[in-house]
Amino acid sequence: MDCVFCKIISKEIKASIVYEDEEIIAFDDIRPQAKVHVLVVPKKHIESLSSLAEKDLDIVSKTVIKAKEIAKIKGIKDFRFVTNSGKEAGQEVFHLHFHILGGQKLGHLC
Amino acid sequence: MDCVFCKIISKEIKASIVYEDEEIIAFDDIRPQAKVHVLVVPKKHIESLSSLAEKDLDIVSKTVIKAKEIAKIKGIKDFRFVTNSGKEAGQEVFHLHFHILGGQKLGHLC
Repeated sequence: MDCVFCKIISKEIKASIVYEDEEIIAFDDIRPQAKVHVLVVPKKHIESLSSLAEKDLDIVSKTVIKAKEIAKIKGIKDFRFVTNSGKEAGQEVFHLHFHILGGQKLGHLC
Repeated sequence: MDCVFCKIISKEIKASIVYEDEEIIAFDDIRPQAKVHVLVVPKKHIESLSSLAEKDLDIVSKTVIKAKEIAKIKGIKDFRFVTNSGKEAGQEVFHLHFHILGGQKLGHLC
């Protein structure tokens, strides 16, 4: 599958990894929109939040609960947690991922 | 407790309710930042994503899985799903809530 996040997961493509366990990986965004901008990615290839099935909900829960821990690794307490579902919302890579943004005062939501 | 979202949940304060079940409520944001801007709120008073405990993870899972259904009620397919944790990230009401934004092409994440 020609998915850049799958390639980061398989270590075929390098990334600045912030956190990793069996189910999720987190790495710095290469085009940061804030001082801290990390992507948290479930290793299982799920296209987007819209295509999330009940059976995969557990993986997403784990991603959500890890957010504050990953923020802490990056030295921040306050953070924005975002996922874009679909092109019009700004999704660029069609492998479900959540953005953690912070390290500065954040502005508008879109 | 002097929480505006708790008051919306208890129907003490009116809101334009989009969806409601036993555990969550969704209503239009009174200061929309996009054509569609809905808040999805777990009824249980949890302060923010940072204060989320493992035991409450199930509620959050249900909130996440409902997102696409709520987007559909509002007539949109693509959407941004956001929570701000802490003041610096833009959190204004300290009762955990997720923003669903869409109905137009969305810009920057912050």
